[in-house]
Amino acid sequence: MPQSKKFILQENDIPTQWYNVVADMPVKPAPMLNPQTGKPMVAEDLYPLFAEELARQEMNSTDAWIEIPEEVREMYKIWRPTPLVRARGLEKALGTPAHIYFKNESVSPVGSHKLNSAIAQAYYCKKQGVTNITTETGAGQWGAALSLAAKHFGLELAVYMVKVSYHQKPYRRSIMQTYGAQVIASPSMSTKAGRKILTERPNYQGSLGTAISEAVELAMSTPNCKYTLGSVLNHVSLHQTVIGLEAEKQMEMAGEYPDTVIACFGGGSNFSGIAFPFLRHKFDGSRQTTFIAAEPESCPKLTRGAFRYDFGDEAGYTPLIPMLTLGHDFSPSNIHAGGLRYHGAGSIVSKLKADGYIDAVDIPQLETFKAASLFAATEGIIPAPESSHAIAATIRRALEAKEAGREEVILFNLSGHGLIDMASYDRYFAGDLANYSVTDDEIKANTSNLQEI
Amino acid sequence: MPQSKKFILQENDIPTQWYNVVADMPVKPAPMLNPQTGKPMVAEDLYPLFAEELARQEMNSTDAWIEIPEEVREMYKIWRPTPLVRARGLEKALGTPAHIYFKNESVSPVGSHKLNSAIAQAYYCKKQGVTNITTETGAGQWGAALSLAAKHFGLELAVYMVKVSYHQKPYRRSIMQTYGAQVIASPSMSTKAGRKILTERPNYQGSLGTAISEAVELAMSTPNCKYTLGSVLNHVSLHQTVIGLEAEKQMEMAGEYPDTVIACFGGGSNFSGIAFPFLRHKFDGSRQTTFIAAEPESCPKLTRGAFRYDFGDEAGYTPLIPMLTLGHDFSPSNIHAGGLRYHGAGSIVSKLKADGYIDAVDIPQLETFKAASLFAATEGIIPAPESSHAIAATIRRALEAKEAGREEVILFNLSGHGLIDMASYDRYFAGDLANYSVTDDEIKANTSNLQEI
Repeated sequence: MPQSKKFILQENDIPTQWYNVVADMPVKPAPMLNPQTGKPMVAEDLYPLFAEELARQEMNSTDAWIEIPEEVREMYKIWRPTPLVRARGLEKALGTPAHIYFKNESVSPVGSHKLNSAIAQAYYCKKQGVTNITTETGAGQWGAALSLAAKHFGLELAVYMVKVSYHQKPYRRSIMQTYGAQVIASPSMSTKAGRKILTERPNYQGSLGTAISEAVELAMSTPNCKYTLGSVLNHVSLHQTVIGLEAEKQMEMAGEYPDTVIACFGGGSNFSGIAFPFLRHKFDGSRQTTFIAAEPESCPKLTRGAFRYDFGDEAGYTPLIPMLTLGHDFSPSNIHAGGLRYHGAGSIVSKLKADGYIDAVDIPQLETFKAASLFAATEGIIPAPESSHAIAATIRRALEAKEAGREEVILFNLSGHGLIDMASYDRYFAGDLANYSVTDDEIKANTSNLQEI
Repeated sequence: MPQSKKFILQENDIPTQWYNVVADMPVKPAPMLNPQTGKPMVAEDLYPLFAEELARQEMNSTDAWIEIPEEVREMYKIWRPTPLVRARGLEKALGTPAHIYFKNESVSPVGSHKLNSAIAQAYYCKKQGVTNITTETGAGQWGAALSLAAKHFGLELAVYMVKVSYHQKPYRRSIMQTYGAQVIASPSMSTKAGRKILTERPNYQGSLGTAISEAVELAMSTPNCKYTLGSVLNHVSLHQTVIGLEAEKQMEMAGEYPDTVIACFGGGSNFSGIAFPFLRHKFDGSRQTTFIAAEPESCPKLTRGAFRYDFGDEAGYTPLIPMLTLGHDFSPSNIHAGGLRYHGAGSIVSKLKADGYIDAVDIPQLETFKAASLFAATEGIIPAPESSHAIAATIRRALEAKEAGREEVILFNLSGHGLIDMASYDRYFAGDLANYSVTDDEIKANTSNLQEI
């Protein structure tokens, strides 16, 4: 008897509202602080940097549901709703009694979930009359998504791409250029922040923190230009909740509810997207779901970071964010999951972790590629190195369920495919990749001076 | 008022039968001939080369409907059914009254329609107890698809990849290797056919015809090994009809019927897949649909080739196929649409073209990249260089409809995405690409000695 593998929604199932988890949190995150005055930021303080509507969404702690503009929803129809898939091939290979589901966000035209927020951000900038936008990108997933969105809404876009990824993933740069964006390897000589770093550390291969500094600086010094960010911030998490809201409907179609929800973790955008809609049933006590953020062993802010006020960028241009952090001076190793090379977690996720609503695991690079290879062989999809962290965490959990004889229902987010990351796979199969760890001393050195929350 | 952009089917809408167009053709194609005896081939003659069930499908001219095995249909569920999309963005950019729809076969995990036949071929080989299979690939779309299918069914696979694409598209090679296939640049020194060419033309960058010779030779000289082909042959077209059968249901959902069906053309697999199911309503006179195969200006077998018996490969290992051909010695230019660099068309399509059921256009390379760029900007998807030929033909047609004020319904097949072809786009935007044409003398020189049908 054939069984459903995919659970497929129609266009009218695309959510009409985003879910703002802050409104339902029993204890809200501490506010961002103005680094000059030490005072809590209000939405208006962010207007110079972000489109005003995005600044208001960032600070909104009262409305649980935010209307999705029709223009954004129309553009979501290019690829949404995305399928929910029962990973029967992976289950069989593991011999686990667990039921494994994944939300396949890799079907977007740029290959990842990032487009969910890129469209919203470009839309609000355009609506406000902004002509130019800037951003940073790690592996290039966010940059590619924003390039497509900027092209659609007729915005000029400059992307600072972390240098190590610029060279590891030249095709992502090509994709951005095909959509009309200007791409600059970061650190660059085009900003003060970039020049400072390049004179102090001439061979520095960059980090998301540095690229953010450059993008922020360019936005602040260009007329009618706003900055956009692909993760970390509350409004980005908000836009990504379409993932979990769709998945909730699809789990209903499958007749199950997840015991465990898993996603990889860089700044938090895809984790928040799949987790927050399910979290609201944990707040009200109706469900006891376990949430697991899977981060790289080489960048373990959730599992080993300090809970402090820290800058979102390397140069210290951003507000102070209450975050689990490795310190904004932390230099992550050159792992191939470029989208996870970020020093901190957003304020919502950090607070949820501190208050015990979510868990985290850190995973060595080689384990992620091994998991990815098994997933490709059994489910047919070559995952992005970032998403492979979620797969590795899922496999660990499914094997524990096997050990315990537990029919656990696991849902993970496949945030993107790896077709643009094949050079990483080549290096893995050639035996050229390694694991990277971080010492406690290194973390302490980078976080001990940060302000307590 | 928001309108549907995509028309989405459920898993139980995946066809349960393939459509065999030969059964309904008013005049059947001439049979393939044994080159030694000059006699028509029967299925048994193909058993040494192909899995027996595939050989029987190849020769089946009586059964219009062939059951899809449950194991194949289960694997189709990894990504099928695929969406039908109304290209409203492209329509608007062209200012055309035409309604443009595309079937989005790019959503498969390997990025193209090729998986539809790869799964079927690997399945029938496995079922017969075959352990090793060989094939050729141009741009790598077919090779990637077969690698995934071979991995799923536990078959060893060797792929001869046309040398020009092997270097232009290294990521496709990586994808094949990730799925466990062995990939050899063709021409190679591993076969007699390869050695012969490499000694005569040391810098030859290869062609599909040469790669087929190598793959056939390896299959014939290896125990328990069969050869598989990604296009040209009748059984490949048969498997691809899931595309058109789904599209037919989806056009019904949209409340329209295509006036014009368009697909790019290399050996015929994606063209046949979308066209044949609609063609059956032209045979019985109930519909007057126009079918357009879009081929490269540099490889114009349908528009300018000779209708002759010719070999399917360069070395002359295959049966003689009644085809529209540029001659098996024809060396196509190094265009980036590697999947369209093939000298001949399959016997069914050739006969349909000769009998006036289908039309063809040939399109210069630069026009295809221009069309692809407009499509990426308006529909968000970066198309494969092959598929861009269908887009260019669609744009031509939509602009003619605008000129004539005609509300034509156009359906084209987006056979694949171009995320692995970004180096081609880089070269296009850098102004490094050119058009390539073929002289009548060149065609005549390569076809004048071929046997009349």
